Amino acid sequence: MPETYRVAIMGATGAVGTELLDLLAERNFPVEELVLLASPRSVGRELTFKGQSIKVQDINQIDFSDIDLVLASAGGSVSKEWAPKAAAAGAIVVDNSSAFRMDPTVPLIVPEVNPEAVLEHKGIIANPNCTTILMGVALWPLHQYQPIERVVVSTYQSASGAGARAMEEVKQQAQAILRDEKPVTEAFPYPLAFNLFPHNSPLDDRGYCQEEMKMVNETRKIFGVSDLRLSATCVRVPVLRAHSEAINIEFQQPLAVAKALELLHAAPGIKVVEDWDANYFPMPMEASGQDDVLVGRVRTDLSHKCGLELWLSGDQIRKGAALNAVQIAELLVKKQLLKSKTVA
Amino acid sequence: MPETYRVAIMGATGAVGTELLDLLAERNFPVEELVLLASPRSVGRELTFKGQSIKVQDINQIDFSDIDLVLASAGGSVSKEWAPKAAAAGAIVVDNSSAFRMDPTVPLIVPEVNPEAVLEHKGIIANPNCTTILMGVALWPLHQYQPIERVVVSTYQSASGAGARAMEEVKQQAQAILRDEKPVTEAFPYPLAFNLFPHNSPLDDRGYCQEEMKMVNETRKIFGVSDLRLSATCVRVPVLRAHSEAINIEFQQPLAVAKALELLHAAPGIKVVEDWDANYFPMPMEASGQDDVLVGRVRTDLSHKCGLELWLSGDQIRKGAALNAVQIAELLVKKQLLKSKTVA
Repeated sequence: MPETYRVAIMGATGAVGTELLDLLAERNFPVEELVLLASPRSVGRELTFKGQSIKVQDINQIDFSDIDLVLASAGGSVSKEWAPKAAAAGAIVVDNSSAFRMDPTVPLIVPEVNPEAVLEHKGIIANPNCTTILMGVALWPLHQYQPIERVVVSTYQSASGAGARAMEEVKQQAQAILRDEKPVTEAFPYPLAFNLFPHNSPLDDRGYCQEEMKMVNETRKIFGVSDLRLSATCVRVPVLRAHSEAINIEFQQPLAVAKALELLHAAPGIKVVEDWDANYFPMPMEASGQDDVLVGRVRTDLSHKCGLELWLSGDQIRKGAALNAVQIAELLVKKQLLKSKTVA
Repeated sequence: MPETYRVAIMGATGAVGTELLDLLAERNFPVEELVLLASPRSVGRELTFKGQSIKVQDINQIDFSDIDLVLASAGGSVSKEWAPKAAAAGAIVVDNSSAFRMDPTVPLIVPEVNPEAVLEHKGIIANPNCTTILMGVALWPLHQYQPIERVVVSTYQSASGAGARAMEEVKQQAQAILRDEKPVTEAFPYPLAFNLFPHNSPLDDRGYCQEEMKMVNETRKIFGVSDLRLSATCVRVPVLRAHSEAINIEFQQPLAVAKALELLHAAPGIKVVEDWDANYFPMPMEASGQDDVLVGRVRTDLSHKCGLELWLSGDQIRKGAALNAVQIAELLVKKQLLKSKTVA
């Protein structure tokens, strides 16, 4: 009989949390016991896992020495406080927040890119930012074959990037605008329905917002190329779920489109979506709910002799967050790094 | 008394046509008589110009020798048929379609960039594509100071780019989706509400769509740089009106942000919109209805020593089409190239 594990989800009621719950069931993760944790206002709420109702608990009441694996998606401050405690108690934490991503002692993993980094964990493993994961999955197979010199990326990020409440807000804004009423903005600084704006995370003094610097710094860490030249412009668009990215890549040497497509077709986590006759390429509408990153519109860059361009859409909540975390957990199981304390 | 002119609007009932009507009134263009032309199904409809009701007429019934200026916005095939006839009859045609843009005998003009090209007209002057105009206005003052080597641009194009019917379609799609109904698509190949997709104009065999190649070829012609390196990724987004563009620019030499801002502030047709503390930059919501192209988020490109990035939003129907055409007409008046046949 395979080992089973006591798994805790931190932030179980959020957009990513509920997706984690679904994915653990869907992928048949070997769960011995599932503990759901959330903010005080959600304590007592019940969520369903494999037909079984589970009550959301108060994180202060939990003894992490009874937990083998923590999937954390409750925001940076919660992770900063609780991930080290859980790790100290012997659990392995896969953290979806940005709290530990750039910590040199914490592996930052996209399973399709750097699964071996899992071996270096010291109790905490960081899940990269959504836009980083989607781009990383698409660029890695190309970079393996022909090293990347520089990337210029523009993102088209859905409301889901700001959580379930933000998705609801965009719908309500759209309703209001269609009724000629003033849209209410709470989750975002400006109306997003029928509008768009550069990503509203804090800006640094060079003019890049946190979201953009995550793409730069996290990609460098995951790819193991500390000086990778990358510039990102991150933009929120009125799409409910799934992010898209227009990526311009300069390689050290020219990379033919046919070769790039061959590499993308063979790579894990990617579905090549392009029908040039039908003008049909990845769309967030179709990426939503899919595990794979949809990649297409691969073409030689007219403006650079070593350039290639591609277009992708990927589910921000799934591969961009929850699925990647569960895949890291599966890696831990596969490498026998996750120890079941119940069995021991 | 200043000369006045007999002006015809071809495609008067469309999104750009009605804007032309408004702009001629708003800017007090010296109109002697206004003739409105549209497709057969609109003949007889009445539109208002300066409080006066004007009936839409059948183009076949018009004697263009009675017309001084034609503002054409009825699509490429209508322009191809009628613009040469109108020009042969002695009118000057400012054509908003793509029919004559790349014709070497036809000037292609953004008044802020190449007003002098108006002198070379032979009866037809072409108005560039919306995305080209918006980008051209922003890049020209920089290029004048520090020559541009290469541009990588990603667009965020509103439904208005496909006309008034498309704007209505996106609203109806949004209504349907909010009611959990299937959205109807007619103007576009895929639903655009809460979705987005690469621009659906025909693709060439290098993988660039017409909209993208317009940005390349038209910018080269307007800037007078036949080998300008430029790659565009054009994307339709669920915004009703006003396009946005994320532009990465490589100059021959580094251009400091402060200098770029100084140039942009001093340039015509541009409003610099950036408040870094408030994370406030150009948005289509605010660009709609404005004459100026909103430009901001100007920053040094982290990934290139001669790179600079900026973000813009501009009203596709106004500066991206109708306003630019009216400005060309104003140039004709100013340079005394438009002859009033009534007065003569």
